[in-house]
Amino acid sequence: MSLHFRPATEADWPRLWPILHEIVLAQETYTYDPGMDSEAGVRTWLPGPPDRAWLASDEHGTVLGSYKSGPNRAGPGAHVATASYIVAATARGKGVGRAMVLHSLEQARAGGFRGIQFNAVAASNVYAVKLYEDLGFRVVGAVPGGFRHPRQGFVDLLIMYRDLTGD
Amino acid sequence: MSLHFRPATEADWPRLWPILHEIVLAQETYTYDPGMDSEAGVRTWLPGPPDRAWLASDEHGTVLGSYKSGPNRAGPGAHVATASYIVAATARGKGVGRAMVLHSLEQARAGGFRGIQFNAVAASNVYAVKLYEDLGFRVVGAVPGGFRHPRQGFVDLLIMYRDLTGD
Repeated sequence: MSLHFRPATEADWPRLWPILHEIVLAQETYTYDPGMDSEAGVRTWLPGPPDRAWLASDEHGTVLGSYKSGPNRAGPGAHVATASYIVAATARGKGVGRAMVLHSLEQARAGGFRGIQFNAVAASNVYAVKLYEDLGFRVVGAVPGGFRHPRQGFVDLLIMYRDLTGD
Repeated sequence: MSLHFRPATEADWPRLWPILHEIVLAQETYTYDPGMDSEAGVRTWLPGPPDRAWLASDEHGTVLGSYKSGPNRAGPGAHVATASYIVAATARGKGVGRAMVLHSLEQARAGGFRGIQFNAVAASNVYAVKLYEDLGFRVVGAVPGGFRHPRQGFVDLLIMYRDLTGD
């Protein structure tokens, strides 16, 4: 499958919101308010500079996923990036997430970031944890019971990090 | 020294901003943009619900410190609190920080939070790390070189956590 990346804009929102909304309602992976509406969603996913959102589509122009990335913190923490990824329910298991993470690593490197950090990966999201580890991230911390999974109850919330200066 | 706590409001801002601004400009403890102006400061320190800011003053009404606290994340992460503390340069070493942390623990417990998390404690801020550890926090993660200290260079950014269900 050949994926095409381009910056996401508010004009893309009608195609992005259903993907994000399904994930928000499931409450299985991200610590977003399940009551998030489209307006709060666009502020969250397309907040504008210094963050940047990307869109991944297939050769027919169908949106399969999106990610947003930017500095994780300001001032003395602004040299470390962060990113969040969403994949359309119908497009999972096809490498879209992996392609987006790789794209985001390139972008973060090009942006001069020294590393990239995920602040809150639910330990129950074993697929994501394994993917991130495959791509050079490692778990650098765990908040005990930091995530309330709808079926598994309280699970750890992992902090993951990947250095970007060594490659 | 007897400290008085009350909720901070925008009317207190002229007395809070100099305390926060000195800390922001020093770039030694918090990952705030050093270019933060008063307007950005008030949005940061007094963002409104669900966050809450408190003010600690001495018996003469002099503001010695302030902290803000609220849920660290939304949705499936909203059961863990976070907090940030600032102490006036002239009032350091007198137990103001300790009193504010204790106050914030009580407030978080009363608010039904299961734990409280600090997302970004510069490892170089040994005084704060020791204080937090004295009060039951432990380091649950470290982002390598996550903080750029103006003299010490890149130091780790610690994630600290304290359980609130056990006491």
